[in-house]
Amino acid sequence: MPLFRPNIDGMTGYVPGEQPLAGEKVIKLNTNENPYAPSPAAMSVLGGLDSERLRRYSHPTARAFRETVAGVLDVPAEWVLPGNGSDDLLTMIFRAGTEPGRSAAYPVPTYTLYRTLAEIQDAEVAEVPFDEDFHLPVDGLVSARAAVTLVAHPNAPSGTAMPRARLEALAEGVSGLLVVDEAYVDFADHHALDLARSRENVVVLRTLSKGYSLAGLRLGFAVGNPAILDGLMKVKDSYNVGSVPCAVGAAAFADQAYHRECVERVKASRATLAGDLAGLGFRVWPSAANFLFVRPPDGEAGRLYECLKERGILIRYFNRPPLADKLRITIGTDEQNAELVREIVSIRAGAGDG
Amino acid sequence: MPLFRPNIDGMTGYVPGEQPLAGEKVIKLNTNENPYAPSPAAMSVLGGLDSERLRRYSHPTARAFRETVAGVLDVPAEWVLPGNGSDDLLTMIFRAGTEPGRSAAYPVPTYTLYRTLAEIQDAEVAEVPFDEDFHLPVDGLVSARAAVTLVAHPNAPSGTAMPRARLEALAEGVSGLLVVDEAYVDFADHHALDLARSRENVVVLRTLSKGYSLAGLRLGFAVGNPAILDGLMKVKDSYNVGSVPCAVGAAAFADQAYHRECVERVKASRATLAGDLAGLGFRVWPSAANFLFVRPPDGEAGRLYECLKERGILIRYFNRPPLADKLRITIGTDEQNAELVREIVSIRAGAGDG
Repeated sequence: MPLFRPNIDGMTGYVPGEQPLAGEKVIKLNTNENPYAPSPAAMSVLGGLDSERLRRYSHPTARAFRETVAGVLDVPAEWVLPGNGSDDLLTMIFRAGTEPGRSAAYPVPTYTLYRTLAEIQDAEVAEVPFDEDFHLPVDGLVSARAAVTLVAHPNAPSGTAMPRARLEALAEGVSGLLVVDEAYVDFADHHALDLARSRENVVVLRTLSKGYSLAGLRLGFAVGNPAILDGLMKVKDSYNVGSVPCAVGAAAFADQAYHRECVERVKASRATLAGDLAGLGFRVWPSAANFLFVRPPDGEAGRLYECLKERGILIRYFNRPPLADKLRITIGTDEQNAELVREIVSIRAGAGDG
Repeated sequence: MPLFRPNIDGMTGYVPGEQPLAGEKVIKLNTNENPYAPSPAAMSVLGGLDSERLRRYSHPTARAFRETVAGVLDVPAEWVLPGNGSDDLLTMIFRAGTEPGRSAAYPVPTYTLYRTLAEIQDAEVAEVPFDEDFHLPVDGLVSARAAVTLVAHPNAPSGTAMPRARLEALAEGVSGLLVVDEAYVDFADHHALDLARSRENVVVLRTLSKGYSLAGLRLGFAVGNPAILDGLMKVKDSYNVGSVPCAVGAAAFADQAYHRECVERVKASRATLAGDLAGLGFRVWPSAANFLFVRPPDGEAGRLYECLKERGILIRYFNRPPLADKLRITIGTDEQNAELVREIVSIRAGAGDG
């Protein structure tokens, strides 16, 4: 008997962005980390954790973190489900909601993990193309009649936000669960929590990886009504969130003042970098995230990615249509962004000479 | 459309043991934590983690931990796959290996998560009963011809070890993957790593939750040939192990001297407690784990569990046949174990009076 299911043998798996080892000197603008340190309050909790926390099992629903989130967002604790990063929550959603005959639908291009998770479930997917301006294709998604419909808001890799009215229309129209994946929403002007509150079929996902500078901690959460979360809990690992993320994440999330300060700095840097790249002739899509989606003037995105990598700057290049002429660039510090712009100017001057 | 798959709607989910909140004064002998603190070297690493570790994504295969484990066990790093606890690795195995038509087989009673994970996959299960002495039912398991066969070694809740010859016969006989779940093997006299090394269809699971006092950290690993691990990696979350478990776990695993010292203390306490309970008329199964599986002389396990809980001592009671007249008791410190024995004597004296 083959060791694995046929669809597993037939798939390749999700390929995450490059993670250089600690100590490698690079400007890392490729996997959408926040350039600023986590909350000092969170680091202080980390430094003060006693051994008893590690010796004993964590709480199965990461109680301290769950209650902190509920308090800040003003929802009951039963409306919050913590996960080992929001990827863990996406995994729960696909395991509980999709299988052959229960499909997933989402606009593309978007986070490619959605397709990977559907492949693992052997579920059909309806991939509905965005137009060139990344308007949310509500009609196409509704008519897919999927068991699970997903929208990344803001979308990745485009960075674009979705108007509230379109998200509402989608929630109204879909036949099954609507997942609003708000991994990047901390950098946007509006969010969809009210949809999760008011609609029985909507769940919103959040993460502390970007807006709270805690990518290495692995912590995210879902907000939705308990009927949805109870279903997801049946497929979650019993102790999916460890004691350290629970305690450190609670402190970080409680420190909303520091969070807002970091977010505002990133948004200001985003505006500067967007202006600089547009000035160099790049097409820059309007970003509501902590990265920019851009098209170099000559469309030679792959070459620019390689040249920048040689110079110690990592950005994200997706070598497949319709993304192959575009790049996704994480917002760094102003100094890092300025260095990026300088190197791009230098590379293009070299290309002009050649 | 219903929100979830029919098999999810029809199942109840795994129910973990009670986790009292920090601050509740109990003697906690119900979920098999190690009574001793984690390695001081590991705690020192935890205290010294800098914010950069949390800000950035962890390595997708928890490189530092993986290489430490490989070094200690003398296997190539590619033969080690870290997980968010060994439950995460069990999840990967069921997701990759089971579905309708690809069943799971295991002896029972055992870790009930196996059944839950099969239910999530809608896979058939062959539950082959142990005899009263928990001999491994090799023939029954082989004739089940399952895609995935699992053996907890030592078994939970019985604590019993399996003779090497039987594990070898099982590896030889099964038609698909054999998973030897060695969550408790640190407290046993032999292990099955050589089977994982020599057989293409065998994977061994380990955890740092018990033998390394790190239940709250969530860290385990699989050892198997890369053909198995590559399949599992397709279904694992990209960053399933965070930076903190990776760094702290590597330090703990490297500190084998401290590990062995704690294990020897637990084994000595196990012998004492087993003798004490046998002296009170309990049947005590021979344990190769950090817990005892016992039958009170009157078979009134549920009542004893409740009485002990009222007195602030938590042990594990499984209210279902064939376990309902038995108890699983985690080995605590000698002081905790002595207190347990005193309370049992006191409860039984009270019952005699009544």
